Amino acid sequence: MSDIPYKIYLDESDLPTEWYNVRADMKNKPAPLLNPGTGHPLTAEEMGGIFCEELVAQELDDDTAYIPIPAEIREYYKTYRPSPLVRAYNLEKRLGTPAKIYYKFEGNNTSGSHKLNSAIAQAYYAKKQGLKGVTTETGAGQWGTALSMACAYFDLDCKVYMVKVSYEQKPFRREVMRTYGASVTPSPSMETEVGRKILAEHPGTTGSLGCAISEAVEVAVTNPGYRYVLGSVLNQVLLHQSVVGLETKTACDKFGIVPDVIIGCAGGGSNLGGLIAPFMGEKLRGERDYRIVAVEPASCPSFTRGKFAFDFCDTGKICPLAKMYPLGSGFIPSPNHAGGLRFHGMSPILSQLYHDGLMEAVAVEQTAVFQAAEEFARAEGILPAPESSHAIKVAMDEAMRCKETGEEKTILFGLTGTGYFDLVAYQSFNDGTMTDSIPTDEDLEKSFATLPVVPGT
Amino acid sequence: MSDIPYKIYLDESDLPTEWYNVRADMKNKPAPLLNPGTGHPLTAEEMGGIFCEELVAQELDDDTAYIPIPAEIREYYKTYRPSPLVRAYNLEKRLGTPAKIYYKFEGNNTSGSHKLNSAIAQAYYAKKQGLKGVTTETGAGQWGTALSMACAYFDLDCKVYMVKVSYEQKPFRREVMRTYGASVTPSPSMETEVGRKILAEHPGTTGSLGCAISEAVEVAVTNPGYRYVLGSVLNQVLLHQSVVGLETKTACDKFGIVPDVIIGCAGGGSNLGGLIAPFMGEKLRGERDYRIVAVEPASCPSFTRGKFAFDFCDTGKICPLAKMYPLGSGFIPSPNHAGGLRFHGMSPILSQLYHDGLMEAVAVEQTAVFQAAEEFARAEGILPAPESSHAIKVAMDEAMRCKETGEEKTILFGLTGTGYFDLVAYQSFNDGTMTDSIPTDEDLEKSFATLPVVPGT
Repeated sequence: MSDIPYKIYLDESDLPTEWYNVRADMKNKPAPLLNPGTGHPLTAEEMGGIFCEELVAQELDDDTAYIPIPAEIREYYKTYRPSPLVRAYNLEKRLGTPAKIYYKFEGNNTSGSHKLNSAIAQAYYAKKQGLKGVTTETGAGQWGTALSMACAYFDLDCKVYMVKVSYEQKPFRREVMRTYGASVTPSPSMETEVGRKILAEHPGTTGSLGCAISEAVEVAVTNPGYRYVLGSVLNQVLLHQSVVGLETKTACDKFGIVPDVIIGCAGGGSNLGGLIAPFMGEKLRGERDYRIVAVEPASCPSFTRGKFAFDFCDTGKICPLAKMYPLGSGFIPSPNHAGGLRFHGMSPILSQLYHDGLMEAVAVEQTAVFQAAEEFARAEGILPAPESSHAIKVAMDEAMRCKETGEEKTILFGLTGTGYFDLVAYQSFNDGTMTDSIPTDEDLEKSFATLPVVPGT
Repeated sequence: MSDIPYKIYLDESDLPTEWYNVRADMKNKPAPLLNPGTGHPLTAEEMGGIFCEELVAQELDDDTAYIPIPAEIREYYKTYRPSPLVRAYNLEKRLGTPAKIYYKFEGNNTSGSHKLNSAIAQAYYAKKQGLKGVTTETGAGQWGTALSMACAYFDLDCKVYMVKVSYEQKPFRREVMRTYGASVTPSPSMETEVGRKILAEHPGTTGSLGCAISEAVEVAVTNPGYRYVLGSVLNQVLLHQSVVGLETKTACDKFGIVPDVIIGCAGGGSNLGGLIAPFMGEKLRGERDYRIVAVEPASCPSFTRGKFAFDFCDTGKICPLAKMYPLGSGFIPSPNHAGGLRFHGMSPILSQLYHDGLMEAVAVEQTAVFQAAEEFARAEGILPAPESSHAIKVAMDEAMRCKETGEEKTILFGLTGTGYFDLVAYQSFNDGTMTDSIPTDEDLEKSFATLPVVPGT
């Protein structure tokens, strides 16, 4: 056995003091968010009605490479960070691979994922601005849970609009949020104008993420002292998530680990964007090269089959336009158990990097993903989230290729979360009833037709 | 802020190399297990038909203070241990107490609790003995999950008999076990003689732990290459769990922390027995004094209202007799959400220590426990298991007393697990429908009447 322990835990003093803003090192900056009515880039003033002031500044800042992490946020980070960088000795042994496999594990907190890294930052800025509270939407509930925890810490009101079908069928995450003091409302609700309108038109609807976003935004803009917050896609979120990559880099440097390939799942892009940030920085500055691979479900193949184009961030078409690799806001992914990877778009930062050939992407099917998840769980102990298991699958494939070629590659992947609230998915895999489903070219043509025509382009 | 970090993570090299056997320092040894037919202490030979050989030796060894932890077990421990000793800075702040609060957190593994510490040891000895597999029973599923993980690691067959009502109503832990390759059978089943007999007599029964034990034991003794394993109560289990206390002691010594009071929840006694082991050793040897407090639910008050007497370990009365603080094997606890604390008896080791005045006990009601759990979760982030929350409640009470007196006491408690699979309980608390229920003296007189008459006593 080598000198590297199973789990590398950094000290509190190794916790990053600054987030790293990868945009500062990008030659081609990500396109700005556009006002869908005018086609003009959103101004800070326009954004300020919806988002907190300092978060707007972070959203628009393409130039500052390092942004200090406020002491209050660092203090909270200390309660669950630094997260461990784990050497997958047991998985390596089970696969019989000469590859060295590492994963950065973000699941050891009650939100069960990396989402808390940005939730606590967004809650902090809301508190600092003197707000009463924040609103958000949640599907399966991971982001809502993280935000509830953050708001409990800063004593902020937290209003979560949860897609009605999830609210009813997945009551457990809802109860976690309530335990942290959040109000959780099934969406559509009678509390908002948009909710009442939708319910009048579709009385039996079980809701959608697009509708929940609409309600959360309406409540934020019509209630003094409230703002809306979002857990992925945005530049500010990737900035906060850079704490994941910075810790990883520090741990790697401490033990002389140099990854040949870095792998992460990609839904809205926040975890992958965070993990790769400092490594991508080195690559952009020409200091060192890394292979970087985004993994997405074949049922929602933004990178691998989407178009580099502007699209609405939400299905309700009330949000700004972002330049991404969207499938069209009208895209309805086939049922897939990785709820966090069912977004029709992708982070503008990652989209630009992908477009510029700085990273790769691969799409995998969910039965193969759960097969990998099961093998990983049995070897490494941890029951992974379906989302994270997409990265596991591709890391294991890479390790098996090393077994064939004899290469002793160093593989690093992001294990973003645990699967404790995804047992319905595991049951379907255990029962052998899980299926795969890939959109046809015709399906995609149809959803591409929902891409907006941007004024002036 | 002091020099002590939020989380003290020891290095791999600090992992204990030996378990500590507190019996070696006890002047009054715990009473041996008795054969219920003869009233004589069980011999190694009698026990060997049910338990693995080396575990029988550990069960009977009252003299060896330190027993080496085999390298294979230490290797597995490294995948999730050392577990953190956490300074509850945020809880202290919220309570406004001058007390210093620490907790040893055992929930950061997929089994969600300390149970894995003994499961991996028991699976190892089964493997070493050349067995094919092990059998066990599980109620809510925490022990079954831990054992499934351990068996997956050592490639052992794992047959879990799960109380039918839990199997049907709590499918999620069942799916975790299946993901780790265990076979999970709802009990009573048609697979065993005792199961068929019970089903013939009570066709609609939803099962009981006593019945599940009977089935697991029958399968172990009638199938060559199988043995039965148990996750609490036994001396061997407390021995394995001493790893928790040993790590805690090492962390305390490293940072100059001396607890004034050590608090743990007690169901069968395995977590408390493990946490206090080295501290109790110092106390027994007269080196240092500590207040040690066992916390139990008022609905199942073994220590506080039970009798120091021999009783069956199971409700089915097929297991040996143990000298405990039982309520009688016929005791049926009122509904309480802390499934792990509903056992009618208690570890013979802890029972003897309690009888000798070396530790205290207190009983608390579940609504107060969940109130404490919610406050803890909001302050510390972690969503605690209902069982662990009993210790939280008493630790918080102690901290509030310090606030009144101004004493800067150091309080240490065991946070044995997470509550991710206990959201039905949290929902009942959040909805305000949770109630308390304490057995009357009459209830207890009735259950005491089920205590056995031991031949020759």
